[in-house]
Amino acid sequence: MASSSSLTLSQAILSRSTAPRHASSHPPLSIPSFSALKSASSSAAVSVSRRRTRLPVRASAAVETLEKTTDTELVEKSINTIRFLSIDAVEKANSGHPGLPMGCAPMGHILYDEVMKYNPKNPYWFNRDRFVLSAGHGCMLQYALLHLAGYDAVKEEDLKSFRQWGSRTPGHPENFETPGVEVTTGPLGQGIANAVGLALAEKHLAARYNKPDNEIVDHYTYVILGDGCQMEGISNEACSLAGHWGLGKLIAFYDDNHISIDGDTEIAFTESVDTRFEALGWHVIWVKNGNTGYDEIRTAIKEAKAVKDKPTLIKVTTTIGFGSPNKANSYSVHGSALGAKEVEATRKNLGWPFEPFHVPEDVKNHWSRHASEGAAYEAEWNARFAEYEKKYPEEAAELKSIFTGELPAGWEKALPTYTPESPGDATRNLSQQNLNALAKVLPGLLGGSADLASSNMTLLKMFGDFQKNTPEERNVRFGVREHGMGAICNGIALHSPGFIPYCATFFVFTDYMRAAMRISALSEAGVIYVMTHDSIGLGEDGPTHQPIEHLASFRAMPNILMLRPADGNETAGSYKVAVLNRKRPSVLALSRQKLPQLPGTSIEGVEKGGYTISDNSSGNKPDVILIGTGSELEIAAKAADELRKEGKAVRVVSFVSWELFDEQSDEYKESVLPAAVTARVSIEAGSTFGWEKIVGAKGKAIGIDRFGASAPAGKIYKEFGITAEAVIAAAKELC
Amino acid sequence: MASSSSLTLSQAILSRSTAPRHASSHPPLSIPSFSALKSASSSAAVSVSRRRTRLPVRASAAVETLEKTTDTELVEKSINTIRFLSIDAVEKANSGHPGLPMGCAPMGHILYDEVMKYNPKNPYWFNRDRFVLSAGHGCMLQYALLHLAGYDAVKEEDLKSFRQWGSRTPGHPENFETPGVEVTTGPLGQGIANAVGLALAEKHLAARYNKPDNEIVDHYTYVILGDGCQMEGISNEACSLAGHWGLGKLIAFYDDNHISIDGDTEIAFTESVDTRFEALGWHVIWVKNGNTGYDEIRTAIKEAKAVKDKPTLIKVTTTIGFGSPNKANSYSVHGSALGAKEVEATRKNLGWPFEPFHVPEDVKNHWSRHASEGAAYEAEWNARFAEYEKKYPEEAAELKSIFTGELPAGWEKALPTYTPESPGDATRNLSQQNLNALAKVLPGLLGGSADLASSNMTLLKMFGDFQKNTPEERNVRFGVREHGMGAICNGIALHSPGFIPYCATFFVFTDYMRAAMRISALSEAGVIYVMTHDSIGLGEDGPTHQPIEHLASFRAMPNILMLRPADGNETAGSYKVAVLNRKRPSVLALSRQKLPQLPGTSIEGVEKGGYTISDNSSGNKPDVILIGTGSELEIAAKAADELRKEGKAVRVVSFVSWELFDEQSDEYKESVLPAAVTARVSIEAGSTFGWEKIVGAKGKAIGIDRFGASAPAGKIYKEFGITAEAVIAAAKELC
Repeated sequence: MASSSSLTLSQAILSRSTAPRHASSHPPLSIPSFSALKSASSSAAVSVSRRRTRLPVRASAAVETLEKTTDTELVEKSINTIRFLSIDAVEKANSGHPGLPMGCAPMGHILYDEVMKYNPKNPYWFNRDRFVLSAGHGCMLQYALLHLAGYDAVKEEDLKSFRQWGSRTPGHPENFETPGVEVTTGPLGQGIANAVGLALAEKHLAARYNKPDNEIVDHYTYVILGDGCQMEGISNEACSLAGHWGLGKLIAFYDDNHISIDGDTEIAFTESVDTRFEALGWHVIWVKNGNTGYDEIRTAIKEAKAVKDKPTLIKVTTTIGFGSPNKANSYSVHGSALGAKEVEATRKNLGWPFEPFHVPEDVKNHWSRHASEGAAYEAEWNARFAEYEKKYPEEAAELKSIFTGELPAGWEKALPTYTPESPGDATRNLSQQNLNALAKVLPGLLGGSADLASSNMTLLKMFGDFQKNTPEERNVRFGVREHGMGAICNGIALHSPGFIPYCATFFVFTDYMRAAMRISALSEAGVIYVMTHDSIGLGEDGPTHQPIEHLASFRAMPNILMLRPADGNETAGSYKVAVLNRKRPSVLALSRQKLPQLPGTSIEGVEKGGYTISDNSSGNKPDVILIGTGSELEIAAKAADELRKEGKAVRVVSFVSWELFDEQSDEYKESVLPAAVTARVSIEAGSTFGWEKIVGAKGKAIGIDRFGASAPAGKIYKEFGITAEAVIAAAKELC
Repeated sequence: MASSSSLTLSQAILSRSTAPRHASSHPPLSIPSFSALKSASSSAAVSVSRRRTRLPVRASAAVETLEKTTDTELVEKSINTIRFLSIDAVEKANSGHPGLPMGCAPMGHILYDEVMKYNPKNPYWFNRDRFVLSAGHGCMLQYALLHLAGYDAVKEEDLKSFRQWGSRTPGHPENFETPGVEVTTGPLGQGIANAVGLALAEKHLAARYNKPDNEIVDHYTYVILGDGCQMEGISNEACSLAGHWGLGKLIAFYDDNHISIDGDTEIAFTESVDTRFEALGWHVIWVKNGNTGYDEIRTAIKEAKAVKDKPTLIKVTTTIGFGSPNKANSYSVHGSALGAKEVEATRKNLGWPFEPFHVPEDVKNHWSRHASEGAAYEAEWNARFAEYEKKYPEEAAELKSIFTGELPAGWEKALPTYTPESPGDATRNLSQQNLNALAKVLPGLLGGSADLASSNMTLLKMFGDFQKNTPEERNVRFGVREHGMGAICNGIALHSPGFIPYCATFFVFTDYMRAAMRISALSEAGVIYVMTHDSIGLGEDGPTHQPIEHLASFRAMPNILMLRPADGNETAGSYKVAVLNRKRPSVLALSRQKLPQLPGTSIEGVEKGGYTISDNSSGNKPDVILIGTGSELEIAAKAADELRKEGKAVRVVSFVSWELFDEQSDEYKESVLPAAVTARVSIEAGSTFGWEKIVGAKGKAIGIDRFGASAPAGKIYKEFGITAEAVIAAAKELC
């Protein structure tokens, strides 16, 4: 083992506690010492012009290019450019992860230079191939590739400001910082699940809009994931679905380098990944020499593309930190700069005479064709879309709405409205009315539940199931895979701005998918989270199923809207807000139990976050303000009725979304919650954590600061004191 | 398909959108119609007394019993008793899940009646076999079994109050409500991961304490899990580890009934579970007839026990709702009462003439032996432990501490102490000093990290790795599997009260394991969560890695301690609290960055949650109170120094744990935060959500209510205004 000289304590302990590793699957490492590369060969330029003449290109052309590869010396030089840009940027930042880019540079080069179709001058061109670096810590690989490919977001100065304040090259790939990055990765396993969402989106749109004479939707989704991603449960969830759905245009490269942060993966990861993926319904290929076996990689991609009914996992055995004579194949190259001495040794070892951040002219020249090639791809596609629009105007309008993100005019008129006379219903049922109404007018609305469709009420009745053989349908069956579901929805949302993915489970099980939801918020993916059974009101299933702290936990999360509607109008208002917020996810907390349609609620009220639904005071001076959310707004209203009978001036405020209320003007806030009125009682069947902000030190927050219980809902409400009586008593104490 | 008559809309949609299902793997259902069973046969009584004479029993005996089974008629009658107790309880509650108990009654019967060793009169007997119903919604199966086996917690009246307020038979199995239930399940996948923890605990203790002449630790862990559990990522994580660790005494029954809530599993779950488990290193057996193939089940268990170096998955193909003529094999029997008519039809179909909740005399008689048998098991083991104690007093004392939960006297003296002159350090490093000091005096302390041991600083330096062939060691390598890690630790904690499992990752990745952490809190599992890199202070990794809302999100969760120590003494205090709280998990938020040892901090202070570390005021009337936690306490202290120079009377309060402070007397609280002093400034590098409670409406909370950024830590602190200057400015505005 090359790393034996740098054994840490942890590894030393390991060496006496683990069995000898299987030499067969990972033969002893040998790092070839390359001789210094020659400078630019003229053949590269020739190959560029040859390729240009083949435009316009179609999907099949990308495969053809595999057969006419650039000469190997230039390829190697380009690969080493990627390696050294990564090494240099990490070195300059003195922070980052050089190991993966050094090991994955060959597959990265082949993907971005030989295989993928994209337009560097328009990173948002709809029909581009998507690439996801699921092992996001290796982001310098992607930045180097975007730089070589000519993306404006990653200039030399961006590479030099890697991981610095305000740069476009943050420590992990962030789609909202760097055009050309599709999704936000770093938290392991998210990226591969996002990629499943991207591939789902492509398969769905292709099935829905392609015509025999015009395959207007047609791209691949590529991923690089590492051992860390493979260990995460989310990746198994998402990959099981990818196999189930037969996402043939999803091609994942598994960087099998046998090293994770704690050392050799043998200490915690000895399963057969290949066999597992076969079990999940994937086609599996093993590239044994990912370091220098360029043709092996090319052949594998060709094979992967030929398998159309299954996603493909290409296991690429690589050496982490390839080229570093003393650190390659050890955890020490994973997450730290090499250090000046080792950088020097690596330069010598790989024959790299250049200054830091230098891109040799021939390499630059070779990559320069991507700007014009990409422009041509897009122009050709635009021409095809013009034809499509002429021939299929209706479909074109829908597709355009999806790829531009412009919602069809007047869509909000489809939102149902209710009066106090409308029959009472659970907000989960009202939610389904909204979803079904909106699906007719929003072509990008699709989604489903984690095996709770009939409880979450999320089925779109006019559509069938998105399945392997019916991908044009819009009900997605995620199975009991909440985490994968959330991340897949992030992928769908970020595929095209007009996609409005929704997904559903019980509110308490947001705990299973919170990491994906946080990335929705961070990466500005406007997913709609339809979370039913939102309190002790679900009753008998008991405390494992009853959310308590969940409302507070999302109110504390940045850039996410937590909405808890009380009835039909508020549910419609919540959907209006959720649909409009395409760069901010929404969480809708919905009741299992039936609720009345309350007088005074409105869509407009919801848009303000908090608003008065009834008031018998004057001069903005109620004796007491009662504040409720969701199913407890009814209780607040009942308590107000009683108090008013006793002569009190009572205002009832619905506080459906704290975030939206926070965004209102001070004047508006004062009109709802006047500072002078300190007699305030809130009621919500959840943690009181955070409510002091609303009710103030002199007010009273009625809630639940313990776990729930298994019993009929009414009984729990009573036992926990979530009652009109409790509100009345509290109000009387205060005014 | 028997269910075709009850197709819902969702299934109707499905039927046109999915391919025909594979008849081969699931042949058409046929439900045998049993003739009415005869009453008690005398052979049962004979078999009971036969078995009694074979005591004392050892592990091997449990296998032997498989060869001498009770006559099949009585077995079937017992199985139908289990089915009808479940049906009747769900019917009476008009709520619950009859389908699983009806399908799994045969394996349940064989486990509890023929295979498992337990003492119903002492559910906590240390060396018992553990059983986990991972598919927790089927809890009536377990309640029926506990009832028949003679556990005091589940009398007939308990079955009759299923899912009612205050009952011992809640809607999902809860260890804290029902002695005999090992762990709390319901949220899918948790149970199988808990079981991996239970089996790890057994393997560890056996390796550590067993002697050639006295195998004092020796039990199996059995699980029943369903399709839902199998889809969850957490189960793949935990099962990958179980295979890696070679947990040969873990035997999992996979209830392969092909139905989940949304219908046939074909709609979302077509992977090959068998192959996946083989890939994970498990031994896999398929029982094709789980409904009536009792001998098949028995033989499978025998085979599983014979495989000692791998866990075993027994895939048992069953019919959900077996016996119900119109609802079996459909989702409709999963989660609702059958209804009076179908109950009647099922009684007729299975030949069950009895009243609801009736246990036939011969069945009762047959099961009655478990009380005396169990008492004998325990007595025999107690005798063996007495021998062990005599011969190996040192080991016996340790093991006793683990199985009684009595911490060794004076353990807390091992906690390191610090003075302001001690070198500054990151609290993650101070945490490692504590862990290493405590591991020497706490025999039950063991744990590890999700592939971040060298970042979380969690290695116990005097121990090696817990691995397949070195299970006596105490460093657990979880790989990048946070969710599985948390649930495995729950299993360890609930195996024996003296186990103190800890586990670690970056604080932000609690999002990956939150569902398991909530179950720690709910099920009173005193796991210690060592969460490092607890703020923007981690710097360059950027917003995907920087927690913001996490402190608030745990402060809102019931029964969990959120601790954020500021230096060495506070880290030691946090460990003291965490170790003492065996029925409440603790989350320690620890810094990546170096911090000074502050004057005034103390272990005793931490135990109070909030306390004054410095004060130049008198009469409990400071001009301003500055409140900090963790890495920001230093900033508060610096700001105080400056303000004092300007003549202000300033108190600095460390607010290390809100929960502990809440538990103090009003007098104490007033002595730290006098109501009269409204000039309060808090500083914490996280969400300000909730801080209004502490600083009041007139105070100011300095924090971060947006996502973080990728840059060196100092730069981010400055840009985000988390500085002494900001504290000083705020203080000056207030006083």
